[in-house]
Amino acid sequence: MQKYSGLNYTMLCDFYELTMGNGYFMSGMKDTVTYFDLFYRTVPDKGGFAIAAGLEQAVDYIRNLHFSDEDIAYLRGRGIFNEDFLSYLKGFKFTGDVWAVPEGTPVFPREPIMTVRAPAIQAQLLETFLLLTINHQSLIATKANRVVRAADGRTVLEFGSRRAQGADAAVLGARAAYIGGCKGTACVLTDQIYGVPAAGTMAHAWVQMFPSQYEAFKAYCEIYPTNAVLLVDTYDTLRSGVPDAIRAFNEVLKPRGITKCGIRLDSGDLAYLTQQARKMLDEAGWTGCTITCSNSLDEHLIRELLRQGACIDSFGVGERLITSRTSPVFDGVYKLVAVEENGEIVPRIKVSENVGKITNPHYKRLYRFYGRDSGMAEADYIAVHDEVIDDTKDLVIRDPDATWKQKTMTNYRARELQVPIFKNGELVYDLPTLDEIQAYCASEVATLWPEVLRFDYPHNYYVDLSDRLLSIKHDMLGAAHNV
Amino acid sequence: MQKYSGLNYTMLCDFYELTMGNGYFMSGMKDTVTYFDLFYRTVPDKGGFAIAAGLEQAVDYIRNLHFSDEDIAYLRGRGIFNEDFLSYLKGFKFTGDVWAVPEGTPVFPREPIMTVRAPAIQAQLLETFLLLTINHQSLIATKANRVVRAADGRTVLEFGSRRAQGADAAVLGARAAYIGGCKGTACVLTDQIYGVPAAGTMAHAWVQMFPSQYEAFKAYCEIYPTNAVLLVDTYDTLRSGVPDAIRAFNEVLKPRGITKCGIRLDSGDLAYLTQQARKMLDEAGWTGCTITCSNSLDEHLIRELLRQGACIDSFGVGERLITSRTSPVFDGVYKLVAVEENGEIVPRIKVSENVGKITNPHYKRLYRFYGRDSGMAEADYIAVHDEVIDDTKDLVIRDPDATWKQKTMTNYRARELQVPIFKNGELVYDLPTLDEIQAYCASEVATLWPEVLRFDYPHNYYVDLSDRLLSIKHDMLGAAHNV
Repeated sequence: MQKYSGLNYTMLCDFYELTMGNGYFMSGMKDTVTYFDLFYRTVPDKGGFAIAAGLEQAVDYIRNLHFSDEDIAYLRGRGIFNEDFLSYLKGFKFTGDVWAVPEGTPVFPREPIMTVRAPAIQAQLLETFLLLTINHQSLIATKANRVVRAADGRTVLEFGSRRAQGADAAVLGARAAYIGGCKGTACVLTDQIYGVPAAGTMAHAWVQMFPSQYEAFKAYCEIYPTNAVLLVDTYDTLRSGVPDAIRAFNEVLKPRGITKCGIRLDSGDLAYLTQQARKMLDEAGWTGCTITCSNSLDEHLIRELLRQGACIDSFGVGERLITSRTSPVFDGVYKLVAVEENGEIVPRIKVSENVGKITNPHYKRLYRFYGRDSGMAEADYIAVHDEVIDDTKDLVIRDPDATWKQKTMTNYRARELQVPIFKNGELVYDLPTLDEIQAYCASEVATLWPEVLRFDYPHNYYVDLSDRLLSIKHDMLGAAHNV
Repeated sequence: MQKYSGLNYTMLCDFYELTMGNGYFMSGMKDTVTYFDLFYRTVPDKGGFAIAAGLEQAVDYIRNLHFSDEDIAYLRGRGIFNEDFLSYLKGFKFTGDVWAVPEGTPVFPREPIMTVRAPAIQAQLLETFLLLTINHQSLIATKANRVVRAADGRTVLEFGSRRAQGADAAVLGARAAYIGGCKGTACVLTDQIYGVPAAGTMAHAWVQMFPSQYEAFKAYCEIYPTNAVLLVDTYDTLRSGVPDAIRAFNEVLKPRGITKCGIRLDSGDLAYLTQQARKMLDEAGWTGCTITCSNSLDEHLIRELLRQGACIDSFGVGERLITSRTSPVFDGVYKLVAVEENGEIVPRIKVSENVGKITNPHYKRLYRFYGRDSGMAEADYIAVHDEVIDDTKDLVIRDPDATWKQKTMTNYRARELQVPIFKNGELVYDLPTLDEIQAYCASEVATLWPEVLRFDYPHNYYVDLSDRLLSIKHDMLGAAHNV
């Protein structure tokens, strides 16, 4: 059975990675060492930051990279690849280095989330899969974190498998949602594989299968007395749904001394209905009965419902989370930033008619500066790989686009965000557990000032380039423009 | 290696399907035969219709349904399932019937795309996976069809793997895009598995790897003389990109008598740049050089570019297709519509505070009426399963929501849209090839009147209920409301 690890996704690449690979091979650049950065350009939903996720699957992919005989035969059939190249692919494995920010880290546009150093053919081949897994899971973790923050301490469950864009999107989307702060999922396979607690009790069909709603509720309470969450909106929530639920609770749970139970609403005006339902439950003595709501929820509707006094303990969030419906694309890219020539690391840049598509050249290091007194994240800083950051000394940082805007960092702690993942093709990273990632994510989000956390028009967090990096970039842009 | 068939996705279900299954088992309803309809409610992008897709993966899923020992052990560990139920799951397989519309069929809201007749536990368990695969692929096929129609005969290639929501979304999304009319994909694995032609030549990295753009282009033309599509926007499209490409074509292809080649643009104003590039290529004698464009394209931008006279032969469409960015959710649902009691099929309905969530009850049949003279689709018609449609006679059909609006069908051909897929658990359907599906889709879309094809504010195509079905529904609604 497929367990989402140990799979060989080598052929899940863009065709041009193979034509380029064959081309590098034919042009004598097979062993040319290259550096690629993976970064994104815009925060989904116009938010202030994203949550990096998907590294575990990227690691698994890299470890399982190889071409089967069947793959080679398919490529040969295309009739454009050199036989020596195909022989080379037979023994292909990843021998390079990878650095990445840990999963759950808040990240900002244009920061290298991941850096790959490897011979050109290898580094190029990784492009598609690294992007798709990091893009997908970062998208969902980021959305989940917004939804969880909107719920303001209440439970958020991921309920979206049926609307996910495929099986991976369901399973790994639920994993990413957990990183972002969801407490569980409806998806059984995600629980089985990743230990994300799966929850759920009944659909409308259960109620429709019985002669009456009351009988359906009673039967459910008898079978699951300690987990009786009844769906009360099949016919009429307040006229029959809640009363039938109370009756079933009274007849089945009360005699057994059980006070914990729940109802779920999946339609109608959730602000009004939950307030009425809460009153009915409390008046009947079922103060321990929780109210769960679902039905096209997202961070904005949840905030609005809570502002209107909705009595909701737990939110089941489906399609708008699992597809990040209002912003379904995470725009990560993977760009060549340097090439080793005679042992020297030579930066590369991509210019573009679209200014936003110009890259930051060179092999770099990414730092986050935390205030030593506040513990809060004050700025990120990208430097050339061999620059030394001494956080016992003040440092002047400046906006890379508006260099007259500068700030002096004092009394700060510099933390390098990328950590080594692979060294010479060997995994050198201890993958954290999913619970560790979730806890780390929450603690790192807590270091962001409220103005960065704001949903609408958040403050632009500082991501500055070192003076040396900035001057290298400007020189390269000038040179490119005067070709 | 994973080939997207033969996988066991049994555990990719919502947890409530198992609690209900166990509940049906405990309540003596294990063998109660149920009917579920899979239908959707709203057309993505406010379009006039959707394209059904994903049936092949649904079939594969059903054929591979089973619980492994490991699955049973996991479920036992949850501590709420009856041991007899777990034993029952050990021998679990699908024994029911399935009907569905063929992949590639244009479908309208509230029509049963698929109907399942099976014992309650089985039918309930299928819910999540059937929905996710049909929802996902129908979403992408529908979007692809819009993009392809916008391109008005020009080639559309699917380029979005890196922005897909996971690996399945990339591979099966590219499959669905092909059904909708795309001519190929960038994704190698989709070609290998499904035979969707994979295409691609170079990324910006190729250009950056060489001392100069000209040398990069020349090397590429030498390695791939018959497939030289050069990416011309790494530095400056018109000042250096197109001139360097022409120079490489002249030096490498011309002496070999090759006149077919191409350039690709991935940034800048595509209307202006392609017109200028076309002029430069033609003046240099490269009239056989095609122009491919990519960069956040969708159906609206493609229409607008063509309206502005852009000279584009081929579109590479990425993130906005593979995620259906402007409308990333296909809202298919799976609802109980009937139960067999003592050999009789008894309809079931789901009422709701949200009128749009009320279901059409009963085991039904879905017909499409084509004009015998025009060949065009004139209306769809949903009848109770045992009603006989005689298309040699006139038929009065009426709007189910506004029953005073009626129309008399004359000189029409009635075609039943659902076909048998499984009978008593056995596959009875010959799965068509992907090329057959693509051709069928195109021919069926050609039967839709232009007012249904319109992107904005399309005409509402008639989907009517038979008088008998309508009266059953109204009786049930009245009864439910007077509980």
